[in-house]
Amino acid sequence: MAQAQKITPRAKDYSEWYNDVIMQAELADYSSVRGCMVIRPNGYRIWELMQRALDDMFKETGHQNAYFPLFIPMSFLAKEAEHVEGFAKEVALVTHTRLKATGKTGAGAVMVDPASALEEPLVVRPTSETIIYASFAKWIQSYRDLPLLLNQWCNIVRMELRTRLFLRTTEFLWQEGHTAHADEADAEREARLILSIYRRFAEEWLAVPVLTGVKTDSEKFAGALHTYAIEALMQDRKALQCGTSHHLGQNFARAFNVQYQTAAGGLEYVWSTSWGVSTRLIGGLIMTHSDDNGLVCPPRLAPVQVVLVPIWKTDAERAQVLEVGARVEAELKAAGLRVVLDARDSLKPGAKYFEWEARGVPLRFEIGPRDVAAGQAMSARRGGGKSPVPLAGIGATASRALEEIQAALFTAARERREAASVRGITKERFIEFMQDQGGFAYGGFCGSGECEAAIKDMTGATVRVLPDPEFRSPEAPRTCMWCGKPSVAEAVWAQAY
Amino acid sequence: MAQAQKITPRAKDYSEWYNDVIMQAELADYSSVRGCMVIRPNGYRIWELMQRALDDMFKETGHQNAYFPLFIPMSFLAKEAEHVEGFAKEVALVTHTRLKATGKTGAGAVMVDPASALEEPLVVRPTSETIIYASFAKWIQSYRDLPLLLNQWCNIVRMELRTRLFLRTTEFLWQEGHTAHADEADAEREARLILSIYRRFAEEWLAVPVLTGVKTDSEKFAGALHTYAIEALMQDRKALQCGTSHHLGQNFARAFNVQYQTAAGGLEYVWSTSWGVSTRLIGGLIMTHSDDNGLVCPPRLAPVQVVLVPIWKTDAERAQVLEVGARVEAELKAAGLRVVLDARDSLKPGAKYFEWEARGVPLRFEIGPRDVAAGQAMSARRGGGKSPVPLAGIGATASRALEEIQAALFTAARERREAASVRGITKERFIEFMQDQGGFAYGGFCGSGECEAAIKDMTGATVRVLPDPEFRSPEAPRTCMWCGKPSVAEAVWAQAY
Repeated sequence: MAQAQKITPRAKDYSEWYNDVIMQAELADYSSVRGCMVIRPNGYRIWELMQRALDDMFKETGHQNAYFPLFIPMSFLAKEAEHVEGFAKEVALVTHTRLKATGKTGAGAVMVDPASALEEPLVVRPTSETIIYASFAKWIQSYRDLPLLLNQWCNIVRMELRTRLFLRTTEFLWQEGHTAHADEADAEREARLILSIYRRFAEEWLAVPVLTGVKTDSEKFAGALHTYAIEALMQDRKALQCGTSHHLGQNFARAFNVQYQTAAGGLEYVWSTSWGVSTRLIGGLIMTHSDDNGLVCPPRLAPVQVVLVPIWKTDAERAQVLEVGARVEAELKAAGLRVVLDARDSLKPGAKYFEWEARGVPLRFEIGPRDVAAGQAMSARRGGGKSPVPLAGIGATASRALEEIQAALFTAARERREAASVRGITKERFIEFMQDQGGFAYGGFCGSGECEAAIKDMTGATVRVLPDPEFRSPEAPRTCMWCGKPSVAEAVWAQAY
Repeated sequence: MAQAQKITPRAKDYSEWYNDVIMQAELADYSSVRGCMVIRPNGYRIWELMQRALDDMFKETGHQNAYFPLFIPMSFLAKEAEHVEGFAKEVALVTHTRLKATGKTGAGAVMVDPASALEEPLVVRPTSETIIYASFAKWIQSYRDLPLLLNQWCNIVRMELRTRLFLRTTEFLWQEGHTAHADEADAEREARLILSIYRRFAEEWLAVPVLTGVKTDSEKFAGALHTYAIEALMQDRKALQCGTSHHLGQNFARAFNVQYQTAAGGLEYVWSTSWGVSTRLIGGLIMTHSDDNGLVCPPRLAPVQVVLVPIWKTDAERAQVLEVGARVEAELKAAGLRVVLDARDSLKPGAKYFEWEARGVPLRFEIGPRDVAAGQAMSARRGGGKSPVPLAGIGATASRALEEIQAALFTAARERREAASVRGITKERFIEFMQDQGGFAYGGFCGSGECEAAIKDMTGATVRVLPDPEFRSPEAPRTCMWCGKPSVAEAVWAQAY
């Protein structure tokens, strides 16, 4: 374990703070490959817990997992014109297949063997629509084969110029769903179903409140009819796109000739969707909840939910508190909780508190000789609040406390978001708001790309979503807050990651 | 679902049979990328069940999952001389990062942008020792950081010339463990522990009996001190290496300067291990158990363990058997089983039997009106045997039957392997055995690479392992079965995948 270091306060440098939180909690590390990160065990465990929860939701709604190749023939990417345009500038291209000796030794001992050039270069998948539709074309014959509801968990590569741990990395892990349907309505239902799953996952597991809605044309996925998204607001009042669900229409079906025989005997192109969330969600979790002491992790995704810290001076006390600690550990495990008994001799209790706080453990029980005598433990919540709890029934007590903490994190995050949102904004106020503070600005929008470009140019803000009814203002705006022409939809703008 | 097709019998063409089984069970499919396969939902579910079981075993023994980059700088691979030599001829090399328009449309619309060449080419990981040791060098400072026990589940690329579904593909999925230890004994203990986990997993989950032992120098991992392996024998009497566990000594620690401060204050290189199993195991499972009717899947890894097939003629009968079917389904699910009630109207019962047999479902319950009247279902096991079972307590009955099937598959496979093994072999008999039948041949071995090369040259057989004591012949051979010099160890030869 690395030496404990001070975490830069948020108020001083938010970006440094973010990196410090990750390093102190040992969630990830920089790697020797530009833009690629190493996900360390503490971070990967959060991802595993996320995967399990999402995967269960996908399976409950009839989706199955599969696995498609990492490589895509270059010509495939080109088949959907918008799609290739969207990804052409950030692809990793495999062109050769052998190394040969240079005659030198050590690091310079090998070079690319020019004689091993591939006939057709391969693209490392930046997303898998094209390679998957090639299989769909083989598998889908008749309406009986529909809907086809697939998902894969895999790695993705986009050669980003500016990267940040979890939020934007050259390689990242994600799930990508790909489904084919007999008609537009069924594809639309699917895209919406997934959006609702993403929302529920964000709210109930990440404790991150999100807006749902549709993207404007300039922000939609390259090749989609339209893109739905969940959008969250971070503590620095910048937005984070947390997940997207695309209705692809028949665009990819046409490009890859995915047709099916209808019940009536005709031939139709399928309608399709794709959707994904990634390890970026870990960045969103960190930036939503954490504080100047380090990571704050919602209990349902915490690798360690409860840490037990025994306190002693003498050997006799040590034996006693460790014995009680082991009993409590067993009881918490029996209650289905992820628990660690920190019995290390090498650290004082205060240093242990500090370390586990930085790692985001939601609940700590301190067990000293006086606690044992009183039949209690001292309970300390990561967000503050210390009080004794009886050892009797401590499993149920801990479970209840974790549920409260989970709920409190969500409520606090939603309140922060609302405090950082303004509605019915005017152009003047918008410019000021985006310059001074940032946040979610709700206002009328004429729907034109020119307004979007001008707004982005002047303020850096983009339309995050045209929000779903539930999130819209009570009164629909009449005019575009920027150009004054009639509003076609309320929009939510923000500067974004 | 594809039209049911006839499976080539094993006796006619084993290799065709293998592909037919996979296609009929919809386990995998060829992809548009040379040597890469698509793992379809039925195949991927087996992999998920394997992952869950192995991952639990790794975690129980103190290992944690992490994730390291897909890309490795070319110079890293070169740092360990044997290692780069082992992989130089089969690596996918990323050399460029942008596509540019050619001015044409459609598939030929783009080309590699020569202006986007990387300064240093990246190797798509063929295994991750080198990139992981770069991180180990940062993380490991003192003896307190040891042992470091990591594992990752990921994809791997080796540009193989001749590929076969699951057994040898350009890209495959696997887990790779990487551990660092304070001394040789601890690393050796780890390499052995993992070998025992692999063996237990093969026997208890795959129902595949394996030999354990050590590889000869010519068959060990590029860069290892020595390699342990589990080896199985397929129905065609060819061996399949199912998993390897490498003691790497200090080779990679020296190449990447992974040193730690000892308790006494000195500086030492760590000792390390690496180990892996892959989607190849699915190929081993198929080839060990399946028959001319298609896949036979051991119950513990079967995506569907029990299929319920209702039988009816009239609408009244249909309502009745479906109602009972739903009740049985609920009871089997409550017993923790993976069950499907096949209520399709479009297929006759016989066609359903045929289809589920090809998919390897271990247990089928047929439920007709007469069965319902008698309070029973007709039970049919995938391997043969049909008998009525009472509906009362059918959950427990099914669980017991599945356990019996699992055990019977293992016993049958072990008997087949033993029947295809010869001990105390002589040179003459060896040549004949390898020409006529193949199988596991046990005999004395002088330990020389020359004998190994000559044997491989003449018979295609290689030393699979120098077996652990449990598998050795009662009397140790005195002389090398090939050259007649003193034997240094008993060896097991076979032709192998």
